[in-house]
Amino acid sequence: VISKLERRTVAYHESGHAVAGWFLEHAEPLLKVTIVPRGTAALGFAQYVPNENLLMTKEQLFDMTCMTLGGRAAEEVLIGRISTGAQNDLEKVTKMTYAQVAVYGFSEKVGLLSFPQRDDGFEMTKPYSNQTASIIDDEVREWVGKAYKKTVELITEHKEQVAKIAEMLLEKEVLHQDDLVRVLGERPFKASEPTNYDLFKQGFQDEEDSKNQEAAKTPQPDDDGTPSLA
Amino acid sequence: VISKLERRTVAYHESGHAVAGWFLEHAEPLLKVTIVPRGTAALGFAQYVPNENLLMTKEQLFDMTCMTLGGRAAEEVLIGRISTGAQNDLEKVTKMTYAQVAVYGFSEKVGLLSFPQRDDGFEMTKPYSNQTASIIDDEVREWVGKAYKKTVELITEHKEQVAKIAEMLLEKEVLHQDDLVRVLGERPFKASEPTNYDLFKQGFQDEEDSKNQEAAKTPQPDDDGTPSLA
Amino acid sequence: VISKLERRTVAYHESGHAVAGWFLEHAEPLLKVTIVPRGTAALGFAQYVPNENLLMTKEQLFDMTCMTLGGRAAEEVLIGRISTGAQNDLEKVTKMTYAQVAVYGFSEKVGLLSFPQRDDGFEMTKPYSNQTASIIDDEVREWVGKAYKKTVELITEHKEQVAKIAEMLLEKEVLHQDDLVRVLGERPFKASEPTNYDLFKQGFQDEEDSKNQEAAKTPQPDDDGTPSLA
Amino acid sequence: VISKLERRTVAYHESGHAVAGWFLEHAEPLLKVTIVPRGTAALGFAQYVPNENLLMTKEQLFDMTCMTLGGRAAEEVLIGRISTGAQNDLEKVTKMTYAQVAVYGFSEKVGLLSFPQRDDGFEMTKPYSNQTASIIDDEVREWVGKAYKKTVELITEHKEQVAKIAEMLLEKEVLHQDDLVRVLGERPFKASEPTNYDLFKQGFQDEEDSKNQEAAKTPQPDDDGTPSLA
Amino acid sequence: VISKLERRTVAYHESGHAVAGWFLEHAEPLLKVTIVPRGTAALGFAQYVPNENLLMTKEQLFDMTCMTLGGRAAEEVLIGRISTGAQNDLEKVTKMTYAQVAVYGFSEKVGLLSFPQRDDGFEMTKPYSNQTASIIDDEVREWVGKAYKKTVELITEHKEQVAKIAEMLLEKEVLHQDDLVRVLGERPFKASEPTNYDLFKQGFQDEEDSKNQEAAKTPQPDDDGTPSLA
Amino acid sequence: VISKLERRTVAYHESGHAVAGWFLEHAEPLLKVTIVPRGTAALGFAQYVPNENLLMTKEQLFDMTCMTLGGRAAEEVLIGRISTGAQNDLEKVTKMTYAQVAVYGFSEKVGLLSFPQRDDGFEMTKPYSNQTASIIDDEVREWVGKAYKKTVELITEHKEQVAKIAEMLLEKEVLHQDDLVRVLGERPFKASEPTNYDLFKQGFQDEEDSKNQEAAKTPQPDDDGTPSLA
Repeated sequence: VISKLERRTVAYHESGHAVAGWFLEHAEPLLKVTIVPRGTAALGFAQYVPNENLLMTKEQLFDMTCMTLGGRAAEEVLIGRISTGAQNDLEKVTKMTYAQVAVYGFSEKVGLLSFPQRDDGFEMTKPYSNQTASIIDDEVREWVGKAYKKTVELITEHKEQVAKIAEMLLEKEVLHQDDLVRVLGERPFKASEPTNYDLFKQGFQDEEDSKNQEAAKTPQPDDDGTPSLA
Repeated sequence: VISKLERRTVAYHESGHAVAGWFLEHAEPLLKVTIVPRGTAALGFAQYVPNENLLMTKEQLFDMTCMTLGGRAAEEVLIGRISTGAQNDLEKVTKMTYAQVAVYGFSEKVGLLSFPQRDDGFEMTKPYSNQTASIIDDEVREWVGKAYKKTVELITEHKEQVAKIAEMLLEKEVLHQDDLVRVLGERPFKASEPTNYDLFKQGFQDEEDSKNQEAAKTPQPDDDGTPSLA
Repeated sequence: VISKLERRTVAYHESGHAVAGWFLEHAEPLLKVTIVPRGTAALGFAQYVPNENLLMTKEQLFDMTCMTLGGRAAEEVLIGRISTGAQNDLEKVTKMTYAQVAVYGFSEKVGLLSFPQRDDGFEMTKPYSNQTASIIDDEVREWVGKAYKKTVELITEHKEQVAKIAEMLLEKEVLHQDDLVRVLGERPFKASEPTNYDLFKQGFQDEEDSKNQEAAKTPQPDDDGTPSLA
Repeated sequence: VISKLERRTVAYHESGHAVAGWFLEHAEPLLKVTIVPRGTAALGFAQYVPNENLLMTKEQLFDMTCMTLGGRAAEEVLIGRISTGAQNDLEKVTKMTYAQVAVYGFSEKVGLLSFPQRDDGFEMTKPYSNQTASIIDDEVREWVGKAYKKTVELITEHKEQVAKIAEMLLEKEVLHQDDLVRVLGERPFKASEPTNYDLFKQGFQDEEDSKNQEAAKTPQPDDDGTPSLA
Repeated sequence: VISKLERRTVAYHESGHAVAGWFLEHAEPLLKVTIVPRGTAALGFAQYVPNENLLMTKEQLFDMTCMTLGGRAAEEVLIGRISTGAQNDLEKVTKMTYAQVAVYGFSEKVGLLSFPQRDDGFEMTKPYSNQTASIIDDEVREWVGKAYKKTVELITEHKEQVAKIAEMLLEKEVLHQDDLVRVLGERPFKASEPTNYDLFKQGFQDEEDSKNQEAAKTPQPDDDGTPSLA
Repeated sequence: VISKLERRTVAYHESGHAVAGWFLEHAEPLLKVTIVPRGTAALGFAQYVPNENLLMTKEQLFDMTCMTLGGRAAEEVLIGRISTGAQNDLEKVTKMTYAQVAVYGFSEKVGLLSFPQRDDGFEMTKPYSNQTASIIDDEVREWVGKAYKKTVELITEHKEQVAKIAEMLLEKEVLHQDDLVRVLGERPFKASEPTNYDLFKQGFQDEEDSKNQEAAKTPQPDDDGTPSLA
């Protein structure tokens, strides 16, 4: 059974994700958030509007990183102590940032080089020197540090709102986008064109769309599915 | 056969765990301690109130580390010589601290990165540079050093009590929580809500609880079972 | 479905390849460019006159590198933000430049040494020291940096033309060499002897040529097929 | 066949073990020493009172190290030249000291960390950085150096006795504890409680003892059998 | 099909080998050179008098290295641009020079040590430290650099002759030793004793010679077949 | 077929072994030396009095190293150019010296540590840090360098005798110990006790001796058969 203190930590953690995503232009907004255990491992779960970008810009990946760090930031800012609960978030952020620095060529220090991992994950040895490995590590550490700093500032600025959402969550266990709008107001950013989700809500969907929709979970930029231009 | 000197070492070692756990707020208190050999390998055994936290905070992990180091600290402070008997404790502490530094993102020097080990333990090569490996090692060494310093202070402060428990243990071979209360007094910390164990003692248990209870051994934070929030 | 913004990025990216190739003497000129998705992964596709060189000079490889970087350069110069779409281009550039530095002996710092990778890609350990690995990495980083600088200058110089081609592409979805000639004028370089393609267009082809033609895709210098003199 | 010179080297080597062990408080005293070849590999063999400690203190391991180095020290001090005959001793000392430094947490420089080797000895990569490996190596080198210095002093102090035992051994080929007592006098240390061996000699043994006795060879601290306290 | 420019590059490359070998005392003289493609990979092919040395001196290996670098040197000196066509030559030179430095003990900096590669090429880890690997790399780089400098000087000195041979080759496609004599004059060095080839031309051959002759290709010093004295 | 020059190199190489061994106290004297090819690989072969030492001293191993380097030293001193023919000698010297430094504990800088290689040669990773590997490499390099210096001095001192033996060898193809005595005089060292070979020549041998004799080839100190004292 989950203790009261843990439930509270979970609620603030999830609220951190939700609020951070709400105020970051390029992050996908929250669909639903819950603190009912899912299976045996997850104490909280935040479901986002499926990311339908086939290309990701550097700005989008930065905002997604901040949103992913929103849970840990809420623990630190509002609860005052950090927990092991962010492990999964940090693993995602680690992979996402290594991909930007060493696969997508976003770092000036590393250069326009791409070292994707072998599909079978059976890497005997790194394809570069230890010095290059160290430059990559330092960039990743610095980039994640900057994203966390930004996230802590954002969470601090919206402290009361994080607390309000968390308390609502403790009470109701499930919150939908509409609940968030009531507390946080409309998102300050408007998509320039209707998203799949908008189309979905409008009942306007061709067959192919609906197939995508089914398969759509929260795609991560480290998925092999990110397409390339040739 | 176990020599008198060794029996004495074992008793003080186990007493060190018990007393350290008693006076650390976030450590689970001792249920039972024994110096009867268990199988062929364990000379002493301390059984704790099952840790039912699904999330662990940095403070909890620090206190658990200190409690785990309590045996070696008692050898050093009360017997004046250290033995190989702490090997298993040190292995646990090593894993627990590497997890905090390199998996749970608790170290500012390493940053909010997470490098969990592959499930099959078949790691061909570290996912980071040797410089990062060295930063991680240094953090782990420093953190364990701080925890041991704190533990030695705690054991030194409660020296007489450690000796009293150890001598009781030499005499009776098994001590229960009640015996500890008689020597150490009530634990200075109160759980804010009843633990599973409290419920258990009150005969108040639903079916799911009892299943958990059966499976519950002393869970370590390095278990794969630590849940994540998403 | 692809968003309008993404379609625009794809069009500018492909236009960058096309325009860069047009104004680089040793790059093979574009045959056809399209932004219709190919399978599920490619959003854009540029098809070049098959490279029929059996030997590649250092100058040719430099120009091919710049042409390959033309997509990312167009994103940066004309759209002002970079995306993950260049990943495949960067992977090609990375392999091509490592080959020049560590296999074809083009780098004075590394020297006239050749360390081709084992055919089965099952390299246990690098055949040289970490210091040599670092020299190789630094050369590769510097060479790619120079090529990108050159490419950005070229794209900047032909900014309007890149935009024009991109807008045409958004409108028509497929452009052929003739479309490019209309916007960019005749290529400023003339092959000194007729290429396979010229022969093909003239309907003048012996049997062996037509076989080559079929097999010909855009050969990369890192292909095992690059012949050697003995 | 063994040459006279080699027989002499063997005798002094074994005598070095015997005399060192006699005057080191925590080393197990010699039971029997022989220079008859055992199988094809061993030219000399020293059999000790079975070590029945389940826990080993740092002091005990230091004395065991010195006793193990006694053979080489006798070669150096009394014969004036060293031979390959100490290889097995050095291998034991190497393992024993790495265990103290990197598994049992006896080194302040390495800290209270434990890196036991995997059971199958199939280690792909060290679990720590090269810097930590170097700290461990330096500690091991320093500790073994100190133990050897101490051993050479001990052997030098008891030079005549080493020579006497060695000459007796050359003459008789087998020496028992009683022979040693005649040359060296009673051991200056008394076990505070009777050892298994004492019990054995007194014909006083319960069934479990006799089982242990059968299995007892010279246990090394690097055996996996060293128990841990929990 | 091969372009005119490529044919010219091939001809000068092969001519470079031929002329360099002609004027290097310890290099085996050319038998035949052709620019007709051999199979699908080789555009040019130079066939040498079979090397019948069972032992190779440092001087012989130096001259063989220069001859092997003659192709690239001719590209640089006479064509003014270098190509990928020398890859195979550089791979041979790399192996030959590593063998001299790390297997045959020819380098004073590395010393009289020999680290031959395991027969199965299944090296898990280098048998020496990274510092030694770096010394070996530096020596190899320096030695190859010296050999190339010498080769470029030689080719520059015999520039006209290289061009003449190359043009003859473009015209005739195959050149034999006699053609070379007409352009280059008799080789300035005389073998002190008749070579297998001389014997062959004289029709004077015993059965064993003819067997050797069949098997004889251009043996490389890195062949496992290089005999050792014991 | 072997050229005259190579035959001469072989003869001087073998003569170098023979003469070096003759004047080194701890090296086993030559039994027979031949320059008839043995199988396809060996051009020369020197057969020594079987080494019957079960223990090897540091002095013996030094002299054996010098004798093994005698061939290369003769090439350098008397022929003035070095060849690949010493490869096998250098490989033996490399193994022998690594064994002394890293297995037999003969180096003060490395200390009394022993890191024998695993029997199956399937080492995934060195058991020590790269710094220790570098100390070991430097010691080995220095020791071999000293041994070679000593050998070159010895060969220079006995230059005429090396030449005389070599010329005799060229003439007769096989030399026995008696031939050496005629040129070099009696060996300046006398074994203090009769060797197996002496016994053999005296026809005085028990059954066990003769068995050893059959198996006896030139045992190297790096054989696993070197016995240890325990």
